[in-house]
Amino acid sequence: MVAFSEDDHRHMARALRLAEQGLYTSDPNPRVGCVLTHDGEVVGEGFHRRAGEAHAEVNALAAAGERARGATAYVTLEPCSHTGRTGPCALALVRAGVARVVVAMQDPNPQVSGRGVAILEDAGIQVDTGLLHDEARQLNPGFIARMETGRPFVRLKMAMSLDGRTAMGSGESQWITGPDARRQVQRLRARSSAVLSGVDSVIMDDSRLTLRAAQLGLDNAEDVASRQPLRVILDTHLRLPLAAACLREPGRTLVVTVPGDVEDNGHAAEKCAALEAAGAEVVTLGANADGRVDLAALMAHLATAEEVNELLLETGATLAGAMLDAGLIDELWLFMAPTLLGTGARGLFALPGLERMADQRRLHIHDIRAVGQDFRIIASPLPTSAPSDTKVP
Amino acid sequence: MVAFSEDDHRHMARALRLAEQGLYTSDPNPRVGCVLTHDGEVVGEGFHRRAGEAHAEVNALAAAGERARGATAYVTLEPCSHTGRTGPCALALVRAGVARVVVAMQDPNPQVSGRGVAILEDAGIQVDTGLLHDEARQLNPGFIARMETGRPFVRLKMAMSLDGRTAMGSGESQWITGPDARRQVQRLRARSSAVLSGVDSVIMDDSRLTLRAAQLGLDNAEDVASRQPLRVILDTHLRLPLAAACLREPGRTLVVTVPGDVEDNGHAAEKCAALEAAGAEVVTLGANADGRVDLAALMAHLATAEEVNELLLETGATLAGAMLDAGLIDELWLFMAPTLLGTGARGLFALPGLERMADQRRLHIHDIRAVGQDFRIIASPLPTSAPSDTKVP
Repeated sequence: MVAFSEDDHRHMARALRLAEQGLYTSDPNPRVGCVLTHDGEVVGEGFHRRAGEAHAEVNALAAAGERARGATAYVTLEPCSHTGRTGPCALALVRAGVARVVVAMQDPNPQVSGRGVAILEDAGIQVDTGLLHDEARQLNPGFIARMETGRPFVRLKMAMSLDGRTAMGSGESQWITGPDARRQVQRLRARSSAVLSGVDSVIMDDSRLTLRAAQLGLDNAEDVASRQPLRVILDTHLRLPLAAACLREPGRTLVVTVPGDVEDNGHAAEKCAALEAAGAEVVTLGANADGRVDLAALMAHLATAEEVNELLLETGATLAGAMLDAGLIDELWLFMAPTLLGTGARGLFALPGLERMADQRRLHIHDIRAVGQDFRIIASPLPTSAPSDTKVP
Repeated sequence: MVAFSEDDHRHMARALRLAEQGLYTSDPNPRVGCVLTHDGEVVGEGFHRRAGEAHAEVNALAAAGERARGATAYVTLEPCSHTGRTGPCALALVRAGVARVVVAMQDPNPQVSGRGVAILEDAGIQVDTGLLHDEARQLNPGFIARMETGRPFVRLKMAMSLDGRTAMGSGESQWITGPDARRQVQRLRARSSAVLSGVDSVIMDDSRLTLRAAQLGLDNAEDVASRQPLRVILDTHLRLPLAAACLREPGRTLVVTVPGDVEDNGHAAEKCAALEAAGAEVVTLGANADGRVDLAALMAHLATAEEVNELLLETGATLAGAMLDAGLIDELWLFMAPTLLGTGARGLFALPGLERMADQRRLHIHDIRAVGQDFRIIASPLPTSAPSDTKVP
């Protein structure tokens, strides 16, 4: 175990802050920051802004120039070893003559993890790993989940009343929360690779599921909004209207359905073609026992075929409950408005099997704070205990 | 307007803290504190502990003895002018030779308000009123409401999941929240004159609705629990079982019902007699259009006949919703547990007329804080806007 110095901590903390500058733009690549120091002085900084552009280390080396020789590099993620669009960063650090590299966390991709460090060490560079490791992981929950588990990091966002209602019985829901909360939702979309919703929710609000630069409240809002998150709509029976607003927005819309019944095949093929002509891409995935899209298969598809890191779930009680019951929700962001909608209004999670207190779904609450006149609750599901015996003896 | 000094503020703040010592015991009298100072030095302190015992001023004068002459008295409530069980405090202050009296708030009883001050002023004592007025009112929301409006201050307490559910569909609800939250509920009961519940809630949990000294976590817990809040159970059809646990507890149980139907009179009279034999007191009040107890009449009855200051409402969605719709809830204490119970579980407020977002019931949230693993939300209903036009044009 290396004892990292105060300066080490300071420079790595700075590298983490640099990495955050790519929060809304680096997708599907991870957010990475790099600081180069020489004799305790910062000689170069960099972060990864956008896929296809230079990596953090390359930017920092360019800033440092000749002063990189003999320098210490602080990087929030293990330098890459592969020749992608930008060449392996590990090799760039070697060539620049860096003397020491401090790495917050190893590459989470099991196929390449450790290779960057090996290249550095083979070149005689001192490599110290693990400084501010947990903080570095928090930068990239989606990228890490995709690499380690083959599925995205799923964040559920809901706007609710104080009595736990997301919409009137009629479905009317605009607006439960205020503009500050809605701005935060825009930023959640901005950091997500994709937004997932059920077709009923999309139909009800004619949701666009897009970033609106004016609502982001960010200096680089136009830049951020130039990349729209992938819109993913679960639509078992292909009910999305061809006139749906989301099909006319910039960015891609994925309509995910299941293989049609034999009788329906004609209709389904026709509707698929019409949806695609209207701007959607239709993806057919396996169904579960209920005849609905298998959610685990969907997650695998999004991670593999679409490189989805963070997935924002914005939907109603049925899909939210199914995702929760499938163990596919990593984090909940509940925006709670100071209002009551009554028992006739719609709830958050349909959890059909939950009939006894012993079966309640426990959460860990990480944070509650005021957001405008609303309150934001961030929580995550606790591991469920073994299912209790529901048989009558 | 008097410009109160720093010392004035300090001594009145102390008087408020003294008054709080009667929080759980002074009922149905108000919580009152008194500080006597002479040449800037505190020479006597007192508070009102219990109805029938000495008032705050009398206790402070006894502590000061001869040093009360020429002293300044700080009292959180206008000294009384009537000869009750303890004699008028205004006269006691005059007799003791006090030179100045600082009063936080006038007596809220319109029939006697100002009389205590008049006695003091007639005796040549300087009286300054209004110091820490709002803080003084907060000490006695129930006493003030009863005097000013003829009804109790109603505080609704509910334990709920993060998704706004108070019980499973079956009614099972023990326990949603943890021991810290339950201790706070015990203290809410302790400061209340009465606890109000619907018969269904009482039957479901076989609620005792009592103070348990061991759960209060107070130094004077035994003393506090020696006064049980009045239990008030709304029971239109006299369904409370004769074996209900609450009937075997110390303290009184009021079963409130409506005049029986002609056909039912025999049964109703018989059940009344049986309930009274089992330990209840049955009160018949007028019914509203639904045939249920008129809630405004109930509030008036409790304030007038039972001297109820603070009323704690512990019940289910139907009565909670009816109380809210009747504008009879002053404050909500929601204990929110980090758990999900799903849409099959029971909600907080049945609000039958609420069908559109425009009709939502807005609240002001005063405070959210952690209580053990749960969160406590204190809120109050905002005035409802004019009812929107629900007619179809």
